[in-house]
Amino acid sequence: MAETLTHPLVKDGWFKETSTLWPGQAMTLEVKEILHVEKSLYQDVLVFQSTSYGNVLVLDGVIQATERDEFSYQEMMTHVPMNCHPNPKKVLVIGGGDGGVLREVIKHEGVEEVVLCEIDQAVIRASKFLPSMAAGFEHPKVKVHIGDGFAFLEDKVDSFDVIITDSSDPVGPAASLFQAKFFELMKNALHAGGIICTQCECIWLHLPIIKEVLGFSRKLFPRVEYGFTTIPTYPCGQIGLMVCSKDPNTSIREPVRQWSKEQEAKLCRYYNTEIHKACFVLPQFAKAALEAPEESK
Amino acid sequence: MAETLTHPLVKDGWFKETSTLWPGQAMTLEVKEILHVEKSLYQDVLVFQSTSYGNVLVLDGVIQATERDEFSYQEMMTHVPMNCHPNPKKVLVIGGGDGGVLREVIKHEGVEEVVLCEIDQAVIRASKFLPSMAAGFEHPKVKVHIGDGFAFLEDKVDSFDVIITDSSDPVGPAASLFQAKFFELMKNALHAGGIICTQCECIWLHLPIIKEVLGFSRKLFPRVEYGFTTIPTYPCGQIGLMVCSKDPNTSIREPVRQWSKEQEAKLCRYYNTEIHKACFVLPQFAKAALEAPEESK
Repeated sequence: MAETLTHPLVKDGWFKETSTLWPGQAMTLEVKEILHVEKSLYQDVLVFQSTSYGNVLVLDGVIQATERDEFSYQEMMTHVPMNCHPNPKKVLVIGGGDGGVLREVIKHEGVEEVVLCEIDQAVIRASKFLPSMAAGFEHPKVKVHIGDGFAFLEDKVDSFDVIITDSSDPVGPAASLFQAKFFELMKNALHAGGIICTQCECIWLHLPIIKEVLGFSRKLFPRVEYGFTTIPTYPCGQIGLMVCSKDPNTSIREPVRQWSKEQEAKLCRYYNTEIHKACFVLPQFAKAALEAPEESK
Repeated sequence: MAETLTHPLVKDGWFKETSTLWPGQAMTLEVKEILHVEKSLYQDVLVFQSTSYGNVLVLDGVIQATERDEFSYQEMMTHVPMNCHPNPKKVLVIGGGDGGVLREVIKHEGVEEVVLCEIDQAVIRASKFLPSMAAGFEHPKVKVHIGDGFAFLEDKVDSFDVIITDSSDPVGPAASLFQAKFFELMKNALHAGGIICTQCECIWLHLPIIKEVLGFSRKLFPRVEYGFTTIPTYPCGQIGLMVCSKDPNTSIREPVRQWSKEQEAKLCRYYNTEIHKACFVLPQFAKAALEAPEESK
């Protein structure tokens, strides 16, 4: 008989997501069974089967993906930058060890190669419990590199059309991915006309972080837009994306490529051309806060 | 010394929002102090001071409003229908006993009278703990009627320009407010060209309910649109609004009236003209599900 796993964050049959990043609030999910517990070199890894969100991947106590709603994040992080680029052939994913972004990138038929650089092999191992995401690794166009995204980028020049940084929050192993230096490295690693998209926190919780990233992104890239997607199991029910282009003519809010309605229905569960445009429209409080730095220049 | 209040849903210093309407998931908020506990004629009323969301109003175990994020719901429920109407003078609010929607309605200077019909006086009493919402009751244009919204509407014909139904979920006292008969009563109570807006659940949880309401709304009104607003303390971080107009020429997605940028900045924290338009853009899965009934006709 298999050993019954336990985890300190699962009590009385519920997982609770507390963090200093969102004090005083915590999403909780009912747990059917704990499937995997591991202390990797970098973080605490937990996978459990929930009663209503399918299997759930948790890193350092923070929900990264659930089978029920992960498509929102993966699709928006991928198709927004990809459809802003006229012809993305070489794509880099930093982080994203669950395979979800890979799965979305390879929906774009023109892609010739997609490289994934994940610091923690344990995440890739754990993703076998979320097989519809891990499926992203199976494609022949995918190459996997285990290592630090920062270090990986240091010798890359003029190498990618699109870089997607699918990271965890700016504490722990992903802290360096929210710094200007990292954005400079990404910029150098892009071809002319290249585009990046990075996970960039939530307007209801972290406007100061978003403002900081927006500030140095605007100094590095001629076109920068901040959007968001809704997703029930992320704190406050949404997560932001920072999209930057090296080409001053890129209209990030208006995708340069779009699928037909039939293709959208077949390929997507969250993304469509209209939501691409709408995701950049911010509530008044966020709009005001994020416009402010430009006004004060 | 004041008695220390207790409530069965507050344990170990945290409030947990479980419900059969969202099985297997529950938002939790850290509690600083329980301020008010009451069993009214209709429901269980709880108000607590949270550590990070200000004071929180809870009815039958479900969060209705927190001081930190209530503006999203109140502004969108109000300004979306109000700005779709060319000149709203007489407004009815059904439910909304916390006063938040009233506060927003009276921002529209052309309004001559706003009637609030709340079934449960206990909600109005409890709202004194959320004073920035309860402020809505102070305005001379406001009239309060305590009673059932359904019964109130039965003898009302051609009486209002805009009706806003700010109800709780379709279990308990608000169940009848999600029925075709109620929408018919609202339609009859509207002037020609009148507009209604009703709280209508979340696409991540209740597509079947939304689909049903959309179905009978489309039979009653020539123009119907479903939109949503994001709000951290509602289940899955968002809540929908069903907007219906008696005038076939109303473009619900394009407001007929808009504030200047300066007025928006002064009057609103969530609403602006752009987010009015964007709130009706749905993720692919919801778009597909809600378009389906029309296709099958």
